[in-house]
Amino acid sequence: MGIEERIFNKELHSKITTAEEAAKLINDGMIVGTSGFTPCGYAKCVPMAIAERIKNGEKMRFELHTGASVGVELDEALAEVNAISKRLPYQTGKTINKRLNDGDTMYLDIHLSQVAQQLRYGFLGKMDVCIVEAVCIMEDGGIVPSTSVGNTPTFIQEAEKVIVEVNTTQPMELVGMSDIYIPKDPPARHPLPFTDVSQRIGTPAMPCDPRKIAAIVPCDITDKTRPLAPLDETSKAMAANLIDFLQYLYGDTLPPLQSGVGNVANAVMAGLVESKYENLKCWTEVIQDAMLDLIDVGKLTAVSGTSLSPSPDGLKRFYAGIKDYRQKIILRPQEISNNPEIARRLGVIAMNTALEADIYGNTNSTHMFGTRMVNGIGGSGDFSRNAGLTVMLTPSVAKGGAISRIVPHVTHYDHTEHEIHVIVTEQGVADLRGLDPREKVAVMIEKCAHPDYKDMLWDYYNRAKREVGGHIPMLLDEAYSWHVRFNETGTMKI
Amino acid sequence: MGIEERIFNKELHSKITTAEEAAKLINDGMIVGTSGFTPCGYAKCVPMAIAERIKNGEKMRFELHTGASVGVELDEALAEVNAISKRLPYQTGKTINKRLNDGDTMYLDIHLSQVAQQLRYGFLGKMDVCIVEAVCIMEDGGIVPSTSVGNTPTFIQEAEKVIVEVNTTQPMELVGMSDIYIPKDPPARHPLPFTDVSQRIGTPAMPCDPRKIAAIVPCDITDKTRPLAPLDETSKAMAANLIDFLQYLYGDTLPPLQSGVGNVANAVMAGLVESKYENLKCWTEVIQDAMLDLIDVGKLTAVSGTSLSPSPDGLKRFYAGIKDYRQKIILRPQEISNNPEIARRLGVIAMNTALEADIYGNTNSTHMFGTRMVNGIGGSGDFSRNAGLTVMLTPSVAKGGAISRIVPHVTHYDHTEHEIHVIVTEQGVADLRGLDPREKVAVMIEKCAHPDYKDMLWDYYNRAKREVGGHIPMLLDEAYSWHVRFNETGTMKI
Repeated sequence: MGIEERIFNKELHSKITTAEEAAKLINDGMIVGTSGFTPCGYAKCVPMAIAERIKNGEKMRFELHTGASVGVELDEALAEVNAISKRLPYQTGKTINKRLNDGDTMYLDIHLSQVAQQLRYGFLGKMDVCIVEAVCIMEDGGIVPSTSVGNTPTFIQEAEKVIVEVNTTQPMELVGMSDIYIPKDPPARHPLPFTDVSQRIGTPAMPCDPRKIAAIVPCDITDKTRPLAPLDETSKAMAANLIDFLQYLYGDTLPPLQSGVGNVANAVMAGLVESKYENLKCWTEVIQDAMLDLIDVGKLTAVSGTSLSPSPDGLKRFYAGIKDYRQKIILRPQEISNNPEIARRLGVIAMNTALEADIYGNTNSTHMFGTRMVNGIGGSGDFSRNAGLTVMLTPSVAKGGAISRIVPHVTHYDHTEHEIHVIVTEQGVADLRGLDPREKVAVMIEKCAHPDYKDMLWDYYNRAKREVGGHIPMLLDEAYSWHVRFNETGTMKI
Repeated sequence: MGIEERIFNKELHSKITTAEEAAKLINDGMIVGTSGFTPCGYAKCVPMAIAERIKNGEKMRFELHTGASVGVELDEALAEVNAISKRLPYQTGKTINKRLNDGDTMYLDIHLSQVAQQLRYGFLGKMDVCIVEAVCIMEDGGIVPSTSVGNTPTFIQEAEKVIVEVNTTQPMELVGMSDIYIPKDPPARHPLPFTDVSQRIGTPAMPCDPRKIAAIVPCDITDKTRPLAPLDETSKAMAANLIDFLQYLYGDTLPPLQSGVGNVANAVMAGLVESKYENLKCWTEVIQDAMLDLIDVGKLTAVSGTSLSPSPDGLKRFYAGIKDYRQKIILRPQEISNNPEIARRLGVIAMNTALEADIYGNTNSTHMFGTRMVNGIGGSGDFSRNAGLTVMLTPSVAKGGAISRIVPHVTHYDHTEHEIHVIVTEQGVADLRGLDPREKVAVMIEKCAHPDYKDMLWDYYNRAKREVGGHIPMLLDEAYSWHVRFNETGTMKI
């Protein structure tokens, strides 16, 4: 099978088996954890074999816990056969998304830094099996993660049994890139000693009692990372607005950056490639293409995350230059990468995207029109509440202008007026620091809203102020009238 | 003047003056910080003298920053003469509350742990003067706080000038009870080394360059702490429900407790006096009467907070037994007492009250019917997002049953479904851990809602599920129909 040379504990060679055999360890009603955070470093062969069993008529449903979203071989394959009874803590696939919105799959939207801790605390039940993609297995049973760490260290610790997929497409040079540390639980927990992005406090492998390893499966399927869309004008404008503001606020030296997942986040980092900034550092969650660009041009000196999630082209580039990149990149458990303690201590600049924002400075990052889950809150809340500066980005409109993303009141609240400092659209930057909600209104409308909606927003606010008043003027029976109008007429415009 | 013996730096004796003279240091347009967190340890004589100047015809308005709410001699006296242009970060007085809801005073509702940091970061402007109640002034200029610490250490550090009110009603035995530590700012910030409630990391006095001390004023006005209402049946029932649940979850040993301010919080702690628990610890914000009771019966071995805020009777009791109490009590800056880092590390049980909660597990702690600010978010968010267990308490109804506090959707979001683990009413306990929003609905309705409203809540949810569906079924045009109905008919009932 050719994977023996990646299993340094000889006794474990007897555990090498097929995905089909390993899949038999999963039974109806179980709680199953897998590696994976974004479509990187996720279990692939065994989930597909489980899906195959179900396709062949076996009745089986189980809970699926991961780091965040994962690749098609895992979430989509299992969602297609409706195998997932409950899912946490994040997702992006079309089928899993439909399942959870249709109610076939229950879905918990938890701050990503909290998952491992809540599992250890017993809040999420007892994990039966975890399935881990590995680069190799060490003599002591320690499992070396591949392109993401996520919640895997704690899953391994908590699960009854461990299945390892040794993925031969993941280069051995990944060994040593991760820094694995599981906090003890209270009252024995220690301070996390980080005072800099590039510190290491743990081990290269995820500790695992070799007796827990129930099966080892060879796998040669590559990470199916997502392509990035070309940078569009709106994203570029948002990035430029934000970078101008950061320069105004911080001058020539920026604190460590956290940047959300996706095209807008990537555009911001890409904007920094063109900027005058040098000696940048990222304390973030997901490492995307533009961070590799920043390393290439020598502007990013250290990046810490939990997942290496570039585009397919970016992944090729990373593999080709791995010996250099790994000098600058550290992957950590998401409990560490997203930990409030560190975001606050380092004074991280948190930059995340929202679906909509309101005139009082609240944002909705998860539920379209209050109801339909898009992806999840992810790590945005871990950073937004604790960062040195909390920035949310959103285009001012959607659907060709039929939807204003700046609304009287958001339909779901993920990040509140209490924690958001700055909101950025392609129109401009709303600097909300130090403002009363009523002062925020003018800034939000004049700096962030699309010109087509400014008068409508002022009309709402002025009537609310006149008719109701108070600290946050609100017309209860009109709060979501814009969304209702869109549902009825296809546009928020009157 | 009789306060010389409390000013150990002899050169500072020349700064002793009257409140009227000191008040002249405050001018129109300034940012003024004062000591005080709840009606404890707040500046009293100088604010009253400022109010007197304005009563006598002087035109003057300024920003007022404090630790939290303060006493009548400060907030009320200044609000009555409309002297406060902007206020942060918390308030409880009738006049200041009317001012900010009427729009006379702008008001920032910030997580309390964030205030000092945001001032140092420049987010809140440059502080001109701070007015500090002190027990005494040390040889090196260090100022010993009295019954609260709040944001005062950072205010002293950041203000151009410092006015000290040496309050001779505050006993010298308070010296040594506080532990003052100001975190450095990034990138020089260190881990907060706490692994236990009773650790000390700082100094007894708040460092102050003696040259900044512009005036020292004798004061003999006592803290006007608030009386506690007698424990009512509803509060007792909530407390009993919660304590039963904690026993179910934790067994015989509880992690450190954080308990919000007010009668409900006090009822929970009072419930623990009767419980079998021993060796309790509090890592909290405000120290109220029942914590003194717990110390008296030997059940509370250590309590850390930022304010000693018992009732008038409790304060007398504290003063009488100060030599014993101070062995168990430590007051810290609110940036430390409320720090996310520590709440998470210690696995604190956070227990705070809400105005209303919704069937999906969100709560509103601040804005009545979305609009009218009650007191503020205070420290609840610092703890709720980072605690080991996050509990919110609210009675199931208000206004004799005309208002259900369990509603389809809250009208303002302070604590979201992402972070709340448990909601408690006098009806029961909703254990929301590990549940999808749609699973939470049944638990919220059956365990927490008042029987009069259960059918109405089910009706809303079932229609929302049928007509809209999705992860969080929501009827956009009915979201706040219960609140609208109350406004129109005087009851939420149909």
